[in-house]
Amino acid sequence: MLKFNDAEYAASAQVTLQSRAAAEQAAKRIWEQGFSNLFLTAVGGSLSPMMAIGEMAKQLTDLSVHVEQAAELLARGHKQMDSDSVVITMSKSGDTKETVAIARACRDRGIPVVALTREADSPLGAAASYHIPMKHTNGVEYEYMLLYWLFFSLLYYRGDFPEYPAFAEELTKLPPRLLKAKEAFEEKADTIARAFHKEPYMIWVGGSEMWGETYLFSMCILEEMQWMRTKAVSSAELFHGTLELVEEDTCVFLVKGMGACRELDERAQRFLESHTKKLTVIDPAEYMEEDAFGGTGGFAWILAPLFVSTLLVDRLAVHMEKYTGHDLDFRRYYRQFDY
Amino acid sequence: MLKFNDAEYAASAQVTLQSRAAAEQAAKRIWEQGFSNLFLTAVGGSLSPMMAIGEMAKQLTDLSVHVEQAAELLARGHKQMDSDSVVITMSKSGDTKETVAIARACRDRGIPVVALTREADSPLGAAASYHIPMKHTNGVEYEYMLLYWLFFSLLYYRGDFPEYPAFAEELTKLPPRLLKAKEAFEEKADTIARAFHKEPYMIWVGGSEMWGETYLFSMCILEEMQWMRTKAVSSAELFHGTLELVEEDTCVFLVKGMGACRELDERAQRFLESHTKKLTVIDPAEYMEEDAFGGTGGFAWILAPLFVSTLLVDRLAVHMEKYTGHDLDFRRYYRQFDY
Repeated sequence: MLKFNDAEYAASAQVTLQSRAAAEQAAKRIWEQGFSNLFLTAVGGSLSPMMAIGEMAKQLTDLSVHVEQAAELLARGHKQMDSDSVVITMSKSGDTKETVAIARACRDRGIPVVALTREADSPLGAAASYHIPMKHTNGVEYEYMLLYWLFFSLLYYRGDFPEYPAFAEELTKLPPRLLKAKEAFEEKADTIARAFHKEPYMIWVGGSEMWGETYLFSMCILEEMQWMRTKAVSSAELFHGTLELVEEDTCVFLVKGMGACRELDERAQRFLESHTKKLTVIDPAEYMEEDAFGGTGGFAWILAPLFVSTLLVDRLAVHMEKYTGHDLDFRRYYRQFDY
Repeated sequence: MLKFNDAEYAASAQVTLQSRAAAEQAAKRIWEQGFSNLFLTAVGGSLSPMMAIGEMAKQLTDLSVHVEQAAELLARGHKQMDSDSVVITMSKSGDTKETVAIARACRDRGIPVVALTREADSPLGAAASYHIPMKHTNGVEYEYMLLYWLFFSLLYYRGDFPEYPAFAEELTKLPPRLLKAKEAFEEKADTIARAFHKEPYMIWVGGSEMWGETYLFSMCILEEMQWMRTKAVSSAELFHGTLELVEEDTCVFLVKGMGACRELDERAQRFLESHTKKLTVIDPAEYMEEDAFGGTGGFAWILAPLFVSTLLVDRLAVHMEKYTGHDLDFRRYYRQFDY
């Protein structure tokens, strides 16, 4: 596969699996010490899997799970946050300034902070009560896996997710399945990128558990790394404004989920199929094999964002780069100056 | 003012003031009967003031206040929703299908539903336990006023907002102040529309209490009613992707709030001012006179979205229409077919 290093991916899987114990131990200690609610907070791309978890929480638990942009949370606070809260943060580099700032502010108030980050002695790691090592070299899916072991363990202890032991094992078996999904998508990724890399504007549609990935890929990859103009809108809200922009040559992507809101994606698909000739549907069901719709354990709707993330962030991005010639690593502003 | 009917606006103020009692009585009865959490749910433009309230709730109360897109809420449910919940819905027409559907589903589960809608015998009104008449002919600000009397009354009963009596009176005095704001903005609205109505793409930046308005105006007005391509992004998240698209000729609008997150708007403003020549700042402080920053009662941050809404939705929209020649009432899809 293009710009893909099999050995590196396998090594990333390995170090991620090694962090499972840290995630589960953190969950166990948090549970034993008691907590009243959860705040998942980060910025940009790291918010994406948290957004997915926020949507899943609504369907699985009556625990209050707040997903918050770190800079906003720091600036305005939150009345439900107190020393009985637990704050979960994530930043691979460990030095994202908003995330470090909210972690420090929480620590100073005696609120336990979990940090998913590479090094324990990074600014973020140092501000945390619990460190979950995030050592992978590539693969956004590995960020999901670590968050899932942590979050779903907590639900398990609360009695909200008795399927956890089977689910946690499913997660350990994911890397080879994700690799197969990448390979199965490779040709389509090339076709999509070739067809649409010159589009002056794209609409990205997705929703519920898939909203985070839709938001992430359009903003943090296509806008930030390819300087492409995009609009992301949820499948449900498409019908309340953005639909009027759809003409037969409007480039639209629909990212389908596999949960209860899939019907809203399908409603959007019916509209889009009859109003643009440039529609691309990204459907994780096509890449999940036995898991799709009620396969092993009924976890497909929870696992689907990992598949979509690996297809888009890991694969489609490099194919876009190939055709645009715009280096994914080049930034004119971000981390080029202090903001 | 362009396409503005003073008598109609005054009449809309009058009928809105007449609904204050219904809003406050609904709050009183809800409080007396007891409730454990609130769900504010609607679609599209009606979600916008709810989003603002959701942000304010985080700063004022430990009550759980959920803001939910109606179609998603209906499709996937919410584990915190039960018969101790109260559901607040809004649709001026009273026949928006997603909103009617969620109201009926809640009613069938014995969950009290408040409907802010024109007629009690509309589909939405008929599904509700409480009807708050929404009789104005124009003025999105009046939707805010009704929601505020309801929501802040509830906070008052809980002891979270002792300033309510003074605040409720401030609201009654708003219409002439909003009218002055419209007039003060008229020339700028013309200038903005003349300068930017041909832009192929605009970035709209706002956040926290102002995110709803930023989202609404870009999607439900510029996209739906002017068929203009837009991207809305929060002031905080601008720095995690969208900033890379900003060049010296990129058309950007910044909608500033007057609450705790204003510092994030100002951070965005500093970046934008030095990277594009086509920046327009919409700052409610310029139109709020005595109220700005600690004036009467310190309510400026709560009232600011009403001022911005009246400037953008009521005024800027018609100036855009004047220059584009694209009738605000024309739709090619919405309500033209069943979806």
